[in-house]
Amino acid sequence: MAVSEARTFGPAEGSTLEPYLKGKIRVNGDALTDYVAALFRHNNMPAADAMISAKGIVLADLVGHESHGVSNNLGGFYLPDLESGVVNPRANIRITRESPSTATWEADGAMGFVIATRAMEDAMERADKVGSGWAAVGNSRHYGMAQIYSRMALARDMIGFSMTNGVTPGVVPFGGLDPKLGTNPISVAVPCGEEPPFVLDIATSTAAFGKIDNYQREGKSIPPTWGLDRNGIPTTDPAEAKAAVKLLTFGGSPEGAAHKGYGLGVWVDIMCGALSGWGFIGKPGEEENVNHFFGAWKIDNFVPIQRHKQLMDERVRDLRSTTPAPGYKRVMVAGQPEWENLQDRQANGIPLHPRVIEMLKGYGVKYGIPYDLTD
Amino acid sequence: MAVSEARTFGPAEGSTLEPYLKGKIRVNGDALTDYVAALFRHNNMPAADAMISAKGIVLADLVGHESHGVSNNLGGFYLPDLESGVVNPRANIRITRESPSTATWEADGAMGFVIATRAMEDAMERADKVGSGWAAVGNSRHYGMAQIYSRMALARDMIGFSMTNGVTPGVVPFGGLDPKLGTNPISVAVPCGEEPPFVLDIATSTAAFGKIDNYQREGKSIPPTWGLDRNGIPTTDPAEAKAAVKLLTFGGSPEGAAHKGYGLGVWVDIMCGALSGWGFIGKPGEEENVNHFFGAWKIDNFVPIQRHKQLMDERVRDLRSTTPAPGYKRVMVAGQPEWENLQDRQANGIPLHPRVIEMLKGYGVKYGIPYDLTD
Repeated sequence: MAVSEARTFGPAEGSTLEPYLKGKIRVNGDALTDYVAALFRHNNMPAADAMISAKGIVLADLVGHESHGVSNNLGGFYLPDLESGVVNPRANIRITRESPSTATWEADGAMGFVIATRAMEDAMERADKVGSGWAAVGNSRHYGMAQIYSRMALARDMIGFSMTNGVTPGVVPFGGLDPKLGTNPISVAVPCGEEPPFVLDIATSTAAFGKIDNYQREGKSIPPTWGLDRNGIPTTDPAEAKAAVKLLTFGGSPEGAAHKGYGLGVWVDIMCGALSGWGFIGKPGEEENVNHFFGAWKIDNFVPIQRHKQLMDERVRDLRSTTPAPGYKRVMVAGQPEWENLQDRQANGIPLHPRVIEMLKGYGVKYGIPYDLTD
Repeated sequence: MAVSEARTFGPAEGSTLEPYLKGKIRVNGDALTDYVAALFRHNNMPAADAMISAKGIVLADLVGHESHGVSNNLGGFYLPDLESGVVNPRANIRITRESPSTATWEADGAMGFVIATRAMEDAMERADKVGSGWAAVGNSRHYGMAQIYSRMALARDMIGFSMTNGVTPGVVPFGGLDPKLGTNPISVAVPCGEEPPFVLDIATSTAAFGKIDNYQREGKSIPPTWGLDRNGIPTTDPAEAKAAVKLLTFGGSPEGAAHKGYGLGVWVDIMCGALSGWGFIGKPGEEENVNHFFGAWKIDNFVPIQRHKQLMDERVRDLRSTTPAPGYKRVMVAGQPEWENLQDRQANGIPLHPRVIEMLKGYGVKYGIPYDLTD
């Protein structure tokens, strides 16, 4: 195990942020949101839904999860899927089954951001009334970053919960050769008092395909804990890992307890696929079937909210003050790097690669929408 | 990464079960339960509570989690803690705060099994009424195996949820040197139709101390993903790992995404410690403060129960039919090895080491309770 490299959780430190920013252009987050919303409106989305979707994508850029921001996904599939009809811009979203604390939703092929936001709002309404609220969503599409929805609970002093199954089966069950799971993320957001919120947002695979792309571009080997080759042997060659499409569940090896990441990935599959009634992603090439699961616990129904916030602040400070192990600069808490990125990017703009700027301009030309984000 | 060793999840195959059974004596599970309940009654526990506690411990032996069965914990701390008063045999268990779907419990130092069973039953009652039910429990004691309580939901066609913080801070935050977390397990149980239930039960550390003990006894090295030495460097020496008390979160290394196991461990801490209002385990040597979190989702409120069971059976069969990767014999689903052990041990008895038999006999002599489990 390499411990010589100083590690942080994100690009929030000078040493890692600087090369990351090289050649990038800072763009104002609000202006970017308005522009992306206009691209969605052009594709027949109602204005409010277009704005919800744009805010969801740009939030990923603001907190530093570029993998889920405009760079990859906007031109990668959100706009193409609207153009081709894979995403329904005016879906007939509805509740098909409910109880005081739960609802099951039919998304009718809606843009994931739209149905996910609506289902999470409904879950929080139920939590306000009966202490907790839950939503299983079926027949949806890619919903962006899982923490978009868990974070919605923070302002309401609730604990937010968000899961989604994946679009493509690219992850192998522990000990197996055939990909049968998506990257199936889990996100939980918990408000603190004065400290930044705790925001967990983890894929149940060790790494995402985007990260393998990055290593390949930089000519680096990948750790053997990320994926198998076509014969089912852990590989360090990013090209081979991409060709094989056999990502490993997190833990990455029997020694790292990858069967636990596998179990969590199947749990996500169950909450999203079984409870929605829409089932599971199966063989590569089958029709897209994305399902989600959301929830909220109202904290003050368990413990006075001020006591909760005091305990959270104490815990976060205690964890952050942990003596770093050799090779580490500091100990973080989930949500801290996102919070640091958010401060930076709200003040200074979102750094975008010139190729991303060109892509955005290109859609403006194609749709006849004036581009005004950069000179 | 070693893939040469054929792996299964548990001792349910001949090749691993046989050495495990060597020298052990099979004891009837019901008789063992009655005997353990008598030991608890002798320590001033009401008969019903003694039986609940005995059943919880013996369930661990039945499903093959010896680490949480009679061998280690009964003489290790349950009986000593009753004798010393650390556990309150007649605790004033009560709800201190509630809403239709949630309750917060004061355990008054109760035996963990007793308060946990009561809180989980209450959560299921709430789920019956409003679709989901939750319980945060404070001021409890060790509650045994996490899946005891998630499994309670299976017979009621609910999804069960169980978490506990640890007794002792033995796990380091990702990148840190000071142990600040317990092994903080998460368990989720989901009923299937004809297939064995899905039962996830994972510590958020890579390995438990008991497993390090086993490696030490057998003179084997441990993987460097399990724990740090006293200087904070990953160690392969079981004696050093035990002396240092710096277990790693699962993932085991940056390459295996150990920051994700860390995030999950903190989540468990929050649900148990913050929502109960009792806070977090702190420095070694501080007073015992164990807190739990339970829940249940009523499946039929999301999706007709028969549709759910059909989907679950299909999914479990599909996952089990995955082609094994080189070095693996078969692909499992969480709960499968426990189910296989349960069939074996309900029919043939629980295998106990002669030293464990001696311990059980010893308590019988000490308390004046006739021992009748073996000749």
